[in-house]
Amino acid sequence: MKASEIRELLKLLDQPDIISFAGGIPDPSLFPAEAIGDAYQALLGGAEAGTALQYQVSEGFLPLRKWLAGYMGKLGVQCDEANIFISSGSQQALDYLGKLFLSPGDTALVTWPTYLGALQAFNAYEPRYDRLNTAGGNMTPEAYRAAAANGGKVKFAYLVPDFANPTGNTLDAAQRRAVLDLAGELDIAVIEDAAYRALRYDGEAVPPILALDCARSGSIDNARTLYCGSFSKILSPGMRVGWVCAPRHVVEKLVLMKQASDLHSPSINQMVMHRVAEAIFDGQVDRLIGAYRKRRDALLGALEAEMPDGISWSRPDGGMFVWLTLPEGADATELLARSVKEARVAFVPGNAFYADGTGRNTLRMSFTLANDRAVNEGVPRLARLLR
Amino acid sequence: MKASEIRELLKLLDQPDIISFAGGIPDPSLFPAEAIGDAYQALLGGAEAGTALQYQVSEGFLPLRKWLAGYMGKLGVQCDEANIFISSGSQQALDYLGKLFLSPGDTALVTWPTYLGALQAFNAYEPRYDRLNTAGGNMTPEAYRAAAANGGKVKFAYLVPDFANPTGNTLDAAQRRAVLDLAGELDIAVIEDAAYRALRYDGEAVPPILALDCARSGSIDNARTLYCGSFSKILSPGMRVGWVCAPRHVVEKLVLMKQASDLHSPSINQMVMHRVAEAIFDGQVDRLIGAYRKRRDALLGALEAEMPDGISWSRPDGGMFVWLTLPEGADATELLARSVKEARVAFVPGNAFYADGTGRNTLRMSFTLANDRAVNEGVPRLARLLR
Repeated sequence: MKASEIRELLKLLDQPDIISFAGGIPDPSLFPAEAIGDAYQALLGGAEAGTALQYQVSEGFLPLRKWLAGYMGKLGVQCDEANIFISSGSQQALDYLGKLFLSPGDTALVTWPTYLGALQAFNAYEPRYDRLNTAGGNMTPEAYRAAAANGGKVKFAYLVPDFANPTGNTLDAAQRRAVLDLAGELDIAVIEDAAYRALRYDGEAVPPILALDCARSGSIDNARTLYCGSFSKILSPGMRVGWVCAPRHVVEKLVLMKQASDLHSPSINQMVMHRVAEAIFDGQVDRLIGAYRKRRDALLGALEAEMPDGISWSRPDGGMFVWLTLPEGADATELLARSVKEARVAFVPGNAFYADGTGRNTLRMSFTLANDRAVNEGVPRLARLLR
Repeated sequence: MKASEIRELLKLLDQPDIISFAGGIPDPSLFPAEAIGDAYQALLGGAEAGTALQYQVSEGFLPLRKWLAGYMGKLGVQCDEANIFISSGSQQALDYLGKLFLSPGDTALVTWPTYLGALQAFNAYEPRYDRLNTAGGNMTPEAYRAAAANGGKVKFAYLVPDFANPTGNTLDAAQRRAVLDLAGELDIAVIEDAAYRALRYDGEAVPPILALDCARSGSIDNARTLYCGSFSKILSPGMRVGWVCAPRHVVEKLVLMKQASDLHSPSINQMVMHRVAEAIFDGQVDRLIGAYRKRRDALLGALEAEMPDGISWSRPDGGMFVWLTLPEGADATELLARSVKEARVAFVPGNAFYADGTGRNTLRMSFTLANDRAVNEGVPRLARLLR
């Protein structure tokens, strides 16, 4: 199923009686609109108004870059502003990194399944995909090298190590080190997509792959890992502010790409994001954790109570998604068509997230917008269809 | 002289006693900061706050696209929202159009000189450049075809027809039709960069190339011209809102590119731009015209009074730039180094704007930030150096 087909299908879901677990978006009622509004007002009513509305340097607003360097430091990544690049959401970072590394026919290693938007970003550069098996198993450097010997040199491994989109799964430290081992043997970059990292509802945080890489390589400027962060899931996706934390030589290349492609991310949004992040980031994270944890628990509870045998699902420690696996041979795309019609319940069929188009018996449910009614009525209705 | 070298040089110009005609930026004291601030506040304090901070469709905010379709209608381009694509400034539009049309080795026709940012955007796709001579003369379809026969198929002509960056020159209707004639014979697209169009200080507006194209081809959806507009010079560059007005099939391709590259331009900035444009666009244009016309007149008057024989310059009807031609053999890059040191006056050496690196005896002066003191002291100081 193509992304465009999914979009067409999802457009049908605007009917008010549909219960949707499809969207991968934050709950807009939890946006800190007042704090953001106050920041815009203070900025545009003050001495910095001219700067906020003017052109800006391509690398981004310096105080925001400094704040982010401090933020990364707290995650175990010692760096400074020269290691921070401001992007228009982390989607732009994926596009630029794809452009930086991939020539047509090169290979990108991705998990099966992986974030659909990453595939869309990378597809523009016409790569092949090979499977990154983060649970261990069939992945050997020799096998990748043998594949690359037929053309398709491996250029990077891309993954979402925390509460992945779409599976909700998190890699432990040993799995992260194994990815670094593989990347070292293949001498490739690692693109760490950390979009959901701050949204942990249970357990202890695992160090970013970049932090493990810095510890090994001695300095961020020797690291092979490029960390893509985003304010979209915490403060606002509509402002389009993300960042890359990476070796300085990579940041310098991204700055040149940005200058040629859109000059810079909006000055005013970066300045507002800096003020808001400085003032309320941690509190906002706590607020979201409180709200989303309850919704995750409610969804998992309902699945447990309602789903028939033969269906399994992930139990994510954070993020926005639960990943369901239907019995072998089931087709979640057909199920979606029936579900929208008969059960009035929507989700995203999983095969869109597979670079090879497999995974037809999987589906993604998001709990960020799932209120009690959605869970208590939607899950039983979906379960009835599956019995 | 490379763009990076110019940037390095321009960084030296921050000393407060330097009089700079170098920047190509609007005067920040003329930004409608209050109207923009009010719009952010109203939006974030109202029922649309969640929408403003949320993800959005890739094609852009529908009411803004409708407003822009109406705006284009007033310029003689009958179209609707399906012909409008919102970009993150017109720089992003140039990047996307470069990506859409150019494969390595293809030819882009550009004027000698042309907008530096367009060359930077197109360079990412590794084209060759050939010369678009908008004044008539040596340009024949046969000559272009002959060049393309050696590889380097011509894919589009790019130009700034109104008050061009860097020359300040404007094409009359006959010249615009001649560009369309050529494009028709070569069967290529025309990229019309209209960034300065609204800033006309004298004379009558000339129809956009796209309007002439629509009149010929019967409908915008049959046109070959892609019009790139921008709010940067009128309302704010720091908000990064531009647009493309083009046949629907081109808009559809741009939407797919945007989805893969940065999802969408910031929702909130598009919504604010819509409110502000609807409320004050025409009045703001009048305000800028009043201010910039005086500065242009002052700069032209000072050049007339001070410059020695052998130096000529453009007399733009609008925009932001005057273009000087020094005697044959002069080198504006060397002059800049001397000028910054001895006269404390800065400008941009012209050869950066030539795809072939010629034009060493030319330079660009911007008058948008030139106050009386800058003109009355800076021009005589520069003129003394040139005598």
